[in-house]
Amino acid sequence: MAQKPSIPKGTRDFSPIEMARRNYIFDTIREVFHLFGFRQIETPAMENLSTLMGKYGEEGDKLLFKILNSGDYLRGADPALLDARESTGKLTSQLCEKGLRYDLTVPFARYVVQHRNELQFPFKRFQIQPVWRADRPQKGRYREFYQCDADIIGSDSLINEIELLQLIDQVFTRLNINVTIKLNNRKVLAGIAELIGAPDKLVDITVAIDKIDKIGIDNVNAELREHGLSDEAINALQPILSISGSVAERLATMEGILASSEIGRKGIEELREVIGGTERLGLNAELDLDVSLARGLNYYTGTIIEVKACDVAIGSITGGGRYDNLTGVFGMPGVSGVGISFGADRIYDVLNALDLYPADALDTVKVMFTNFGESEARASMQMIKHLRTAGVSAEIFPENSKMKKQMAYANALAIPFVAIVGETELAENKVTLKNMTTGDQELLTLEELIKRLAD
Amino acid sequence: MAQKPSIPKGTRDFSPIEMARRNYIFDTIREVFHLFGFRQIETPAMENLSTLMGKYGEEGDKLLFKILNSGDYLRGADPALLDARESTGKLTSQLCEKGLRYDLTVPFARYVVQHRNELQFPFKRFQIQPVWRADRPQKGRYREFYQCDADIIGSDSLINEIELLQLIDQVFTRLNINVTIKLNNRKVLAGIAELIGAPDKLVDITVAIDKIDKIGIDNVNAELREHGLSDEAINALQPILSISGSVAERLATMEGILASSEIGRKGIEELREVIGGTERLGLNAELDLDVSLARGLNYYTGTIIEVKACDVAIGSITGGGRYDNLTGVFGMPGVSGVGISFGADRIYDVLNALDLYPADALDTVKVMFTNFGESEARASMQMIKHLRTAGVSAEIFPENSKMKKQMAYANALAIPFVAIVGETELAENKVTLKNMTTGDQELLTLEELIKRLAD
Repeated sequence: MAQKPSIPKGTRDFSPIEMARRNYIFDTIREVFHLFGFRQIETPAMENLSTLMGKYGEEGDKLLFKILNSGDYLRGADPALLDARESTGKLTSQLCEKGLRYDLTVPFARYVVQHRNELQFPFKRFQIQPVWRADRPQKGRYREFYQCDADIIGSDSLINEIELLQLIDQVFTRLNINVTIKLNNRKVLAGIAELIGAPDKLVDITVAIDKIDKIGIDNVNAELREHGLSDEAINALQPILSISGSVAERLATMEGILASSEIGRKGIEELREVIGGTERLGLNAELDLDVSLARGLNYYTGTIIEVKACDVAIGSITGGGRYDNLTGVFGMPGVSGVGISFGADRIYDVLNALDLYPADALDTVKVMFTNFGESEARASMQMIKHLRTAGVSAEIFPENSKMKKQMAYANALAIPFVAIVGETELAENKVTLKNMTTGDQELLTLEELIKRLAD
Repeated sequence: MAQKPSIPKGTRDFSPIEMARRNYIFDTIREVFHLFGFRQIETPAMENLSTLMGKYGEEGDKLLFKILNSGDYLRGADPALLDARESTGKLTSQLCEKGLRYDLTVPFARYVVQHRNELQFPFKRFQIQPVWRADRPQKGRYREFYQCDADIIGSDSLINEIELLQLIDQVFTRLNINVTIKLNNRKVLAGIAELIGAPDKLVDITVAIDKIDKIGIDNVNAELREHGLSDEAINALQPILSISGSVAERLATMEGILASSEIGRKGIEELREVIGGTERLGLNAELDLDVSLARGLNYYTGTIIEVKACDVAIGSITGGGRYDNLTGVFGMPGVSGVGISFGADRIYDVLNALDLYPADALDTVKVMFTNFGESEARASMQMIKHLRTAGVSAEIFPENSKMKKQMAYANALAIPFVAIVGETELAENKVTLKNMTTGDQELLTLEELIKRLAD
């Protein structure tokens, strides 16, 4: 009995058109990574579970795809656990040694520790690979998706931040997407926490700040009170909540507010250097200061970066920041760095929404030769050989089918030119070239054909 | 306690240099695929086990990596099987719904059936993705490795074979690898089986034919006798075992020998058409007829292709053939096609052995700017911005470190040029460019620098 085939939920097939579009995004990002001196690495899809477990919180551990050990997998399992019939983490780790990578950061940290003696620091690496998460699938969230990460590790210089901001700008300029790059600094957030004497409420505060435009300052204050913030703390926050003006003005205001906090002042100084350095070089994107930006609050220690598309309502399409302990969990302390991650799936959605794919991102062959039988096909294949040598992609319809069927194929694949070698052309040693967009036809020699089709 | 990180056995990390080399191979293959009108697809790493199981034989089923179900995975398991503590296939399929793909062919077949209504036939697809096998790891055999497949389905025309042979030739010409392309045809083998009345001994016979050069005809005959071949059968085989001469001569001899077998004659006719068509177009590779070629004996139904490197002793580096039932197992009969698969890992080994990587397959940045402090770095970053706009990859050493350390970095990464903006250069608004190969230095304006470094 034949099976009706399907794929696991949350996963996708990519058809030629989807691949061409994805490749357009990946190729653009990859090209810019190279232009900025980042070098590519790849790590295996499977990592030891000991490498992955405990790195993404308790919830993350559950979302790891785990690979059943080969052979007699029950042999290593504790009989008591099997008898209890409880699918506990302990039993899982006895049944499974390996899991699929959940992100690119932990494998990168593992890579750095394992290859520390081969690496030249500062190490600028990029990595474009799929990751897997056993998340509940929903619109825009998949169980297999690509991440595109670039990091510079082993250097504390803010030049690295400026480089990454330029890199982001270059990628989105090439992709024709208008973006705003939002910046914050973890030290500024630490300064605010110091100021109001409530470091444990930092997440609530940033969430509240973020809502000001939507719900107004009174509602924000009420929400903060509900979260247990004292009146003094809320009063101390007011100048930050009502901050306004240009980036430079807001930096100045923040500096005044945080004057008493050493770490807060340091954060402002870093922001000033990064923004100043970036603006001196010039950016196409808008650069914005966003004190509510708190992504990866516990992970990032300095600059925090988030990129939003201006013309489509969608979440962050790129993000990153500076961290000071990438590899401590693997026994190699003090590895600091700064990195960014492009959200390929969301960028794909933005390009689709705005119809921003260039015409040549279709990945179709340039010219298809029709097939009228043996002699004609032979002559066509000789011409095709010369076209390919000249770098022109070309193919012949393999069957001597009805003309209508052959043209339907060319149309369906959006092939821009059809070349026809029929009896007449064969006799004259020529070819008729049909432009499928305009419908124009011309009779050409091979040399003329090559000239017409080679860019 | 910090963990000492490692990766699962049989898997690999790819460092920047290894990545650059692999990318050189993949990019070359991909470019030629495009040139010939093949279009890329990708399928998920995970397939339903129902899609994968039973497609690779009993041994293959064991070599599939299986993914433990999420959540309470024991709930779906038969208590009796758990109590029996036997890691049987039945229990496995209750614990695991998904597995990692084992090759690209079965996922491709599944894809074709699932997307049959969207596809335009003939469908020319290529696919370059990793596959996973729980094989015992050994030298040159990995548990994660890439396959690069191209297939044309929905066309019986031998033009497709001729196209694939040209494609193979083009790939290895570009990679500078001398190869012999060996051809056979399953129908010729069927003819031989008819001739000697021992179709079940076909594998033994092809193995024996393959050994003639090494062990001589007498030993081959003795071996065939051991395998239970009758004296009549062995006698009937003698003309095939002693076949010699050019490809054309051997085709003629084979045609005589197989004159009484209709299927055998058909095989010879196909070989003649494929070889003739290919030779008319011209090939850099040597084309050879090899009657002992029996790869995928049960799968292939027509042309059989195998590619060997001439200058390195290594197994087949590419192979393929024609089949007439890709998707029957998924309920879609009659899908015939022809395909090839490039062995990326072996091609990598061949290029390494012969040191055939071009110099620019190193993937290093073109120029590194040294860093002498804030003002110099600022000026350098302006120049870098202009270089990148001109398409020249460039970076600045992010730290104001000792010159020795900065130059050591450039050397270690084999960066061909170092640009120096010191106090003097800053005053003159110039840059000193050092060629790291020759040691030559010259003082240049920005315009001259761009001109020097842009290709």
